[in-house]
Amino acid sequence: DYQMYCGEEEISEQFVKLNVGGQRFMLRKDTIRRRGVGRLLDLINKPVADSNADAFFSSTSEFYFERPPSLFHIVYQFYLNGVIHQPSNLCPVDIIEELEYWRIIPDQYLASCCCAQQIDDDDEEVEEQDKPNLFKTLRFGEIRRCVWNIIEEPASSGKAQAFAVCSVVFVLISISGLVLGSLPELQVATKQRNNLTGEEFTEMEPMPILGYIEYVCIVWFTMEYGLKMLVSAERSKTFRQLLNIIDLLAILPFIIEMLLLIFGISTEQLRDLKGAFLVIRILRVLRVIRVLKLGRYSSGLQMFGKTLKASFRQLGMMAMVVMTGVIFFSTLVYFLEKDEPASKFHSIPAACWWCIVTMTTVGYGDLTPVTVPGKLVATGAIACGVLVLALPITIIVDNFMKVAETERPAGGNRYRTSQYPKATKSEQMILKVT
Amino acid sequence: DYQMYCGEEEISEQFVKLNVGGQRFMLRKDTIRRRGVGRLLDLINKPVADSNADAFFSSTSEFYFERPPSLFHIVYQFYLNGVIHQPSNLCPVDIIEELEYWRIIPDQYLASCCCAQQIDDDDEEVEEQDKPNLFKTLRFGEIRRCVWNIIEEPASSGKAQAFAVCSVVFVLISISGLVLGSLPELQVATKQRNNLTGEEFTEMEPMPILGYIEYVCIVWFTMEYGLKMLVSAERSKTFRQLLNIIDLLAILPFIIEMLLLIFGISTEQLRDLKGAFLVIRILRVLRVIRVLKLGRYSSGLQMFGKTLKASFRQLGMMAMVVMTGVIFFSTLVYFLEKDEPASKFHSIPAACWWCIVTMTTVGYGDLTPVTVPGKLVATGAIACGVLVLALPITIIVDNFMKVAETERPAGGNRYRTSQYPKATKSEQMILKVT
Amino acid sequence: DYQMYCGEEEISEQFVKLNVGGQRFMLRKDTIRRRGVGRLLDLINKPVADSNADAFFSSTSEFYFERPPSLFHIVYQFYLNGVIHQPSNLCPVDIIEELEYWRIIPDQYLASCCCAQQIDDDDEEVEEQDKPNLFKTLRFGEIRRCVWNIIEEPASSGKAQAFAVCSVVFVLISISGLVLGSLPELQVATKQRNNLTGEEFTEMEPMPILGYIEYVCIVWFTMEYGLKMLVSAERSKTFRQLLNIIDLLAILPFIIEMLLLIFGISTEQLRDLKGAFLVIRILRVLRVIRVLKLGRYSSGLQMFGKTLKASFRQLGMMAMVVMTGVIFFSTLVYFLEKDEPASKFHSIPAACWWCIVTMTTVGYGDLTPVTVPGKLVATGAIACGVLVLALPITIIVDNFMKVAETERPAGGNRYRTSQYPKATKSEQMILKVT
Amino acid sequence: DYQMYCGEEEISEQFVKLNVGGQRFMLRKDTIRRRGVGRLLDLINKPVADSNADAFFSSTSEFYFERPPSLFHIVYQFYLNGVIHQPSNLCPVDIIEELEYWRIIPDQYLASCCCAQQIDDDDEEVEEQDKPNLFKTLRFGEIRRCVWNIIEEPASSGKAQAFAVCSVVFVLISISGLVLGSLPELQVATKQRNNLTGEEFTEMEPMPILGYIEYVCIVWFTMEYGLKMLVSAERSKTFRQLLNIIDLLAILPFIIEMLLLIFGISTEQLRDLKGAFLVIRILRVLRVIRVLKLGRYSSGLQMFGKTLKASFRQLGMMAMVVMTGVIFFSTLVYFLEKDEPASKFHSIPAACWWCIVTMTTVGYGDLTPVTVPGKLVATGAIACGVLVLALPITIIVDNFMKVAETERPAGGNRYRTSQYPKATKSEQMILKVT
Ligand SMILES: [K+]
Ligand SMILES: [K+]
Repeated sequence: DYQMYCGEEEISEQFVKLNVGGQRFMLRKDTIRRRGVGRLLDLINKPVADSNADAFFSSTSEFYFERPPSLFHIVYQFYLNGVIHQPSNLCPVDIIEELEYWRIIPDQYLASCCCAQQIDDDDEEVEEQDKPNLFKTLRFGEIRRCVWNIIEEPASSGKAQAFAVCSVVFVLISISGLVLGSLPELQVATKQRNNLTGEEFTEMEPMPILGYIEYVCIVWFTMEYGLKMLVSAERSKTFRQLLNIIDLLAILPFIIEMLLLIFGISTEQLRDLKGAFLVIRILRVLRVIRVLKLGRYSSGLQMFGKTLKASFRQLGMMAMVVMTGVIFFSTLVYFLEKDEPASKFHSIPAACWWCIVTMTTVGYGDLTPVTVPGKLVATGAIACGVLVLALPITIIVDNFMKVAETERPAGGNRYRTSQYPKATKSEQMILKVT
Repeated sequence: DYQMYCGEEEISEQFVKLNVGGQRFMLRKDTIRRRGVGRLLDLINKPVADSNADAFFSSTSEFYFERPPSLFHIVYQFYLNGVIHQPSNLCPVDIIEELEYWRIIPDQYLASCCCAQQIDDDDEEVEEQDKPNLFKTLRFGEIRRCVWNIIEEPASSGKAQAFAVCSVVFVLISISGLVLGSLPELQVATKQRNNLTGEEFTEMEPMPILGYIEYVCIVWFTMEYGLKMLVSAERSKTFRQLLNIIDLLAILPFIIEMLLLIFGISTEQLRDLKGAFLVIRILRVLRVIRVLKLGRYSSGLQMFGKTLKASFRQLGMMAMVVMTGVIFFSTLVYFLEKDEPASKFHSIPAACWWCIVTMTTVGYGDLTPVTVPGKLVATGAIACGVLVLALPITIIVDNFMKVAETERPAGGNRYRTSQYPKATKSEQMILKVT
Repeated sequence: DYQMYCGEEEISEQFVKLNVGGQRFMLRKDTIRRRGVGRLLDLINKPVADSNADAFFSSTSEFYFERPPSLFHIVYQFYLNGVIHQPSNLCPVDIIEELEYWRIIPDQYLASCCCAQQIDDDDEEVEEQDKPNLFKTLRFGEIRRCVWNIIEEPASSGKAQAFAVCSVVFVLISISGLVLGSLPELQVATKQRNNLTGEEFTEMEPMPILGYIEYVCIVWFTMEYGLKMLVSAERSKTFRQLLNIIDLLAILPFIIEMLLLIFGISTEQLRDLKGAFLVIRILRVLRVIRVLKLGRYSSGLQMFGKTLKASFRQLGMMAMVVMTGVIFFSTLVYFLEKDEPASKFHSIPAACWWCIVTMTTVGYGDLTPVTVPGKLVATGAIACGVLVLALPITIIVDNFMKVAETERPAGGNRYRTSQYPKATKSEQMILKVT
Repeated sequence: DYQMYCGEEEISEQFVKLNVGGQRFMLRKDTIRRRGVGRLLDLINKPVADSNADAFFSSTSEFYFERPPSLFHIVYQFYLNGVIHQPSNLCPVDIIEELEYWRIIPDQYLASCCCAQQIDDDDEEVEEQDKPNLFKTLRFGEIRRCVWNIIEEPASSGKAQAFAVCSVVFVLISISGLVLGSLPELQVATKQRNNLTGEEFTEMEPMPILGYIEYVCIVWFTMEYGLKMLVSAERSKTFRQLLNIIDLLAILPFIIEMLLLIFGISTEQLRDLKGAFLVIRILRVLRVIRVLKLGRYSSGLQMFGKTLKASFRQLGMMAMVVMTGVIFFSTLVYFLEKDEPASKFHSIPAACWWCIVTMTTVGYGDLTPVTVPGKLVATGAIACGVLVLALPITIIVDNFMKVAETERPAGGNRYRTSQYPKATKSEQMILKVT
């Protein structure tokens, strides 16, 4: 930092004197030149007559700008430090309008500490916007892009929208089929024979019609998934996306059954082999995965998912606390109650189930402590549960609010506007800027 | 934007120099003229002697105003941009008083981004205030207006108040009648005969006295509703209002019975027809609608209704998440528990009921999982429920606070005053302004 | 508002020019005189040499004060309007120190809109401080004041403290006696004879020792209450205080029994008269009132009580919503379930009990809906409960925070310090001021 | 406070005139000298040519600093009062950068009222950093320090990390052993003989292999604890730490058994003595303490512990309210229900259990009121519970947030940054300063 002795003359030469609404500011011309942007650049690069100021007071060599002085502080600080800090008491819309007047594009200079609330998956969104270009260099690129858009971008065309509606309908039909098939009224008794022992036994199975509907849905899902993988420009990336993994898991039972059929093995034969039977049961349970396909079409589910992702670390910590509490209290209550004949606490895992049900205040009442020390421990567990469960509530709510904010119309929420929930006019203004 | 070179002389001619409590502000006279309002207008339109300033310093040509400089920034910015932005650190009452001094009516110029929190149904209220005029052009306009006010505007006169009290009493009597009629102690056995089979059977029915009371109440409700529709100036609009739809539904069972009587059909005869019997049951259930009539007389219920309306979108999203969770976990638990003899999960809908009861931590315990995998799924469902249910709490609380704020004395809450819950003096001041 | 044309001379005569840390402020001498307080008064009343300013610049006739200009805005505005508005971005401790320097006692001038959060019962506290004087004009004033202090002001002396400890011990003993007396292990069978029919029957009664302890406690309570009423300076006011009403109710069963004894009636005789028997049961239930006597000695209970009092209106509104919801859903579920043989919804009041238990997510499971429509209504009730119960939580928490804040060391929380939870040093400073 | 009449000359002599970005500030040289720190010191101690200012305007004798004037207010106030008050509307990172420029080290001067949120255990941390020095003066100091670091400072070396992993594994194995040993499937029947009566009876005991695993774990724990106490530099302090007390309690049953063995007493013999039997049961229950050893290795548990510690006073108050409520409502319901044959409220303690279960909305349903007054009291208890339990939620959440904040990277959270959750860049900046 060098020093200067300046007379009034020298000051006018080296400095720009600003009169912003009556209040005076001074800036070295070097500083403005170094920053190299904004309306003030005209004051040093152009003759006074073209300086874009509202007036020039020749007696004091001041450039007059009819702007609010309180907001100019932000502009002034930007010229000094090159970053925009946002005072929390001023309206963000107001600040943006002011920066617009001074020809400063806020997005580039917002300080990370107090202005922008960037969300991690910003890059994801950006990537998605650039993806269509990937198809250009591929074989059948145009057709693949077209099919991809129909399947993955419902907003891109009428056909894509129709396809999305179709998909939702098939998902709903398939879920309904699953639910209805479980109703005893819609089940029929089928005779089964144990291949090993040869014994016959009847089993309740869903009506055949539900099976046919199921097949149609699965075929659609398989087609959808196959087509998507076929046309995808980045197959491995598409394959690894959560929603596509769900899609695959939803059709996996069907695919495996197909494969077995091809190899000439019917599921009826497998039923009698212990290990294979377990696989079949797991495959049957896997049918439930299709419910998660709804996540693709519901903004609520997606927001909830993002919230969970954002709260992952904190929820993990809380889970640790809950688990420790559960083991601690259930071990305690087990040792205190185990010798009581009326007690149902037959093992620590059984006590754990009681403890989870109690600490979350669900309280089924299927097993309850019967001794006085057991009840005292239960009181402790309840108190602990009430206290522990208060924490994730706040954590998740906090993160949910942040996620909800970033879901609003594009670009409108880069600034601290959480306090201004109904900024319709402002959002348009901000949109113009960003 | 034009440019000017100004000597001290020219400046005095084109500019107004202000000394606000020692701090200097400058404004072009054109800018003040363009805005066309406020105390500063006097400085350019009137001779200096009538300028309403606290002093004029001839040596510097400054108008002196003995006002706080920190608040004048808002006024200054108003003259520049024509809108009032409200810094969050300053007291809103203070700002309003200052604007009052400067003769600026804040309501017209408040920026939508940081000041006014307009509620959607403002127009509704405005409409209501203008409604009385509608009667002028109608036949029997004066009488209809008079009756309308008695029925719909309890605050308008003593008679209207008496009518409102009467209505509340009748609603309460009718609800009490319904509740008491369900007590076995107040029921009498009546002999019924099945018209088709001719079999006799006894049925418990409420005591006759309760039926008479019921009739009186229904007659009053019908009269009230009929009268209201008769005198209403905008019948179709009145008909479509939620509270009036409730009124209609509350008397519908009675009306239908009357109509059937007119056509010579007794409900006893209908009892034996399958379809008609269902209609009768539905009509009987419809009696409960009268409970909702209380909504007209309770500010708590109205606020809750408005809160629900404001949270509609978010609650819908959360309902979607809960529904998906319920179907997912109940399908899982069904498949895991269905082969267990001790288990009561006989179908997915039955498991759904368990899942709703569990995720909301109600936990009746009427059916609980008995296998270890089932209990693990239940733990997942409980965790999911605890996390999901944390969200609507915050959402609804947020919206409730906003609704509660707008319910305060008229006009007093246009400004960001949520931080100042006990602004009794300020409210009067604000009232004076708005 | 009059006008003036002032040369530099006149300005110095009529105005006080201030240079606060380099920033200029001006004030008319009349304005300072009108306000009549503070350090600025010296500038006009005393010669320049005694003006208490840090310096006087004769070239510009400015009084120099080496104080932060940003804080002087508050002082300046005080001289203009006579009230102190507190900007929310500045530290309250800082403001108070600044006002102290300017010799302005903040308590008198704080604007009600943004500074002071007066609590309603301030006057109560004030009254209490002045009460001792009331004894002066009474007969035996000094003795009565002395006894009063021992009973009612535990902090006044060692004896008073010992008395308070004694009272707490007696309350705890008396509660313990009540609790222990209910244990079957500590009860003895006593033979009772029905005076009318002459039949004998055995009844379990607490052991005699517990009865004696009970008597001792009651005698102490009666003595305490009698003494308090005897020496009270304002008997009717003391009588009407909530805590004293509780004290009276706690000894009422004993007093009534005494009165009956005096009139020669034993409770054994009354037992056989229907009406009197009810009175005895009510008297027995009244014993529980002594638990509330703990409220006098627990700050937690007092804060909870004050919180409830402050939330009264809102909780009332919410109670209305809950009650309407309970009646609505229980009527619905009753009509839907009443014809189901397995259902336990025998009447609407029974359904109300279920509905309360369900909406609050307690969920005993003693009665649950069994039909599908009943379960759907139950789901609605649960959803309604979850939403409604979210509201009082926020309301009560809000009010609790306010109450908790006012309970801190005297005077330290008059200002908006909720954001500064650990203001130990500041509290001392504020204490010095207030 | 002395007075001065100053001409322009004298002012330049006694005062430093500052032009910060166009805005003027004045300070007495004495004031700067008294403070004795910061960049302004150069202005009075060094010749103008070395003053480190950006410029010097000889015409007005002003030192020019090209810094934002709004932030200089903080610096100015620091020179006056010697403390730094932090306006809440400005970005803390911005303030710190500015103070850095002015060469003021913020940590020393932050006002306790609005800046620093010191946590109580700061001194603890400081102490811990200085502890290694304690070993220097001890016998075998270097070896002891080395062993200590391996046991207590997992981050100090690879060996220490391996030791920590080992410890966690042993804790987990020992907990798993405890849990598995309770499963009936993993238990074997052992014949026991009552030494006094000589009767034989079978008892279920964990499989021997689990006992051996248990012994290995206990030996490790004992070794770990013994070693730690052996090498500790401050034995009594180490002994009194909560985590070490837990370690001791976890091995206590084993130690006592060893001691008994040494004295030739087997636990089998003690089993028949009433008092000794109780001791054995307590020792068995003490095994659960090992679960708490997890607290040493989980940041979630530690944060929860600190949160509880910070909320201690408030939770105690709430516990008092809950206890009073429990006793009040359970006494009430006992007196109202005791004469009902169907009621299970056999004593007040039994009713207390019901009341706790009800007020926390757990609602097992193992005992429920059956009379109408009992149900009304239950409704009151539920309402009371819902209201009371809302309070600790907020309290604990508040304190948890504060604890969570102080757990972030060192020094990064000394300033009010709770509003800026994603201050990655800023944290680095702040780190540089502190
Ligand atoms: K329950
Ligand atoms: K529950």
